[in-house]
Amino acid sequence: MTRPSLEGGCVLDDASLDQLIEKLLAGERRAVARLIAIVESDRRAAREVMKRVYPHTGRAMVIGITGAGGAGKSTLIGHIIRSYREQGKTVGAVLIDPSSPFSGGAFLGDRVRLDKLALDDGVYVRSMATRGSIGGLARAANDAVRIIEAMGMDVVIVETVGVGQDEVDVIQIVQTCLLVTTPGMGDDMQAMKAGVLEIADIIVLNKADLEKAEVSLKSLRLILDLATGHDGAWQPRLISTIAATPKVHDVVGLTELMAGIEAHQRYLHSGQALEWKNRQRAEQEISLIFQDQTQQHFRDALDRAGGKQEVLRSILEGDGDPYSVVKEIMDSFALVGPTEEES
Amino acid sequence: MTRPSLEGGCVLDDASLDQLIEKLLAGERRAVARLIAIVESDRRAAREVMKRVYPHTGRAMVIGITGAGGAGKSTLIGHIIRSYREQGKTVGAVLIDPSSPFSGGAFLGDRVRLDKLALDDGVYVRSMATRGSIGGLARAANDAVRIIEAMGMDVVIVETVGVGQDEVDVIQIVQTCLLVTTPGMGDDMQAMKAGVLEIADIIVLNKADLEKAEVSLKSLRLILDLATGHDGAWQPRLISTIAATPKVHDVVGLTELMAGIEAHQRYLHSGQALEWKNRQRAEQEISLIFQDQTQQHFRDALDRAGGKQEVLRSILEGDGDPYSVVKEIMDSFALVGPTEEES
Repeated sequence: MTRPSLEGGCVLDDASLDQLIEKLLAGERRAVARLIAIVESDRRAAREVMKRVYPHTGRAMVIGITGAGGAGKSTLIGHIIRSYREQGKTVGAVLIDPSSPFSGGAFLGDRVRLDKLALDDGVYVRSMATRGSIGGLARAANDAVRIIEAMGMDVVIVETVGVGQDEVDVIQIVQTCLLVTTPGMGDDMQAMKAGVLEIADIIVLNKADLEKAEVSLKSLRLILDLATGHDGAWQPRLISTIAATPKVHDVVGLTELMAGIEAHQRYLHSGQALEWKNRQRAEQEISLIFQDQTQQHFRDALDRAGGKQEVLRSILEGDGDPYSVVKEIMDSFALVGPTEEES
Repeated sequence: MTRPSLEGGCVLDDASLDQLIEKLLAGERRAVARLIAIVESDRRAAREVMKRVYPHTGRAMVIGITGAGGAGKSTLIGHIIRSYREQGKTVGAVLIDPSSPFSGGAFLGDRVRLDKLALDDGVYVRSMATRGSIGGLARAANDAVRIIEAMGMDVVIVETVGVGQDEVDVIQIVQTCLLVTTPGMGDDMQAMKAGVLEIADIIVLNKADLEKAEVSLKSLRLILDLATGHDGAWQPRLISTIAATPKVHDVVGLTELMAGIEAHQRYLHSGQALEWKNRQRAEQEISLIFQDQTQQHFRDALDRAGGKQEVLRSILEGDGDPYSVVKEIMDSFALVGPTEEES
């Protein structure tokens, strides 16, 4: 039987893992934290964990919140969590830290504020840092969302900074996607039109008390009007907020925002839209796991061949060519065999 | 022995392939066209072709030209080709058509103009269209560049529209990268700063006779000044051009641009820079081929499992989970075995 190994060298047998999953299902926070640490750090163990977790997922509302750094996402997330708590709903959140070193100070401050919310038993907040590996973070973040779903949270929020491939990959797994922007940022519409706008179900113009808010609202409205889909498709909503206040009831636009999310969820649950979203998520999950594992294989195979630099040297000196190198790597998939593919 | 199959079902044996390669090395245009068609359409045959092509590559100057549609890239490329021809150099070009449907008319017109150049025996121009497969186009475009190198061209130009992942992947293989922008576009600096600017060795402000050219030049200069690298690193150059004229000698700024490319090539050939670029290219080539092949495996494995929709259905109905699906796919790599991995 496969024995998933934990980081630090200790080994978790099937019985201990089953026990940990039971604690997860009972909502024990330490079990949640431990399971997320496992899927983050150990690909082989992740499979053993996740095949036990999946059957207990699929009932939560999964909301994505994306937008550039400084748009006020963390503050807004805090208020959305408080709103759901007032409705009696439990809420989990997975916050993906950007790899950029530029968003330091204020960002961490917001994190601390969110961490305070985590003292509430009905809230579970987890940060995940961008790591170097391609696809690895997005895969681990999705696993974390599934684990939080399995602990029984009614709502799971995923926050990303909409820049890298990892972040775009993660946003594909959510049901309702909020794009947060501000009057200053609203002018840089080309980039938004190209990618992120396509996946936004609700556009939030935060800091709507800033100068130029009217101009930004108008151009956003114009873009949204142009983006009409087919009959019966969801028409993205535009909602202005002023979230920078400690009290949830003082947030301008929060009622409209919560109603917007509610409306999108109702739309998903009518007709085929949710079924389609679920398929899209499953497809994305397969793709993330596959990419993550093949990239790991790739690195392992290069290591076995004497390291990347050695392989590149042999190509540059004419002792090999890239196709032959890849053939060797692909062949080694077969040699390594099915039972060891992630070791 | 492996028998690479051609599109259309006909099979090319080793002897015929060797003959085709001989014709390529003799510079026969039909052989070039046929070999590019093979690497575009047949992954298995691509390996057989490319392992024969690689030993004859590595001597050409490879120049990348990227920038948004409408910046005048094709016109500029025409003039750069004419300049090199006047210097007595032979020039190949691989033009990657954008997948976007928006850049239709003028674009095709430019292509026709470039095709006229191809009547010159010292010029070989090849367009490649964006296809659906992940990584496939970038891999095939790199193979095409290598094939054109092997036919003996002194310079190979690769044109991309700097938007999709394929285009970014391709630009990583070039030695000298030109980013073409225009006064209108120059204002949208955020996106440029983030990605493309990092890889540009020369920034060309084309259509420099337009209004606002001065403003754009100033802000580009500012960005470049901020982007100073370490001592001895190449400092990106900024060059203004007015290329929209039929006669190469009427192009404003072309002399400076050609001198800029020459200076960057001299920089590469002094010290370790070219060696580093060559390593980077070999690494990128391995990665492109690997991604292309694993994605093909992935699609094949899904087909064998009854098709993507069936696999997704089983997950949504709780009969499976994404990790188990990926485990089956990975296992099938081993079952299919080394000799058939691209079938």
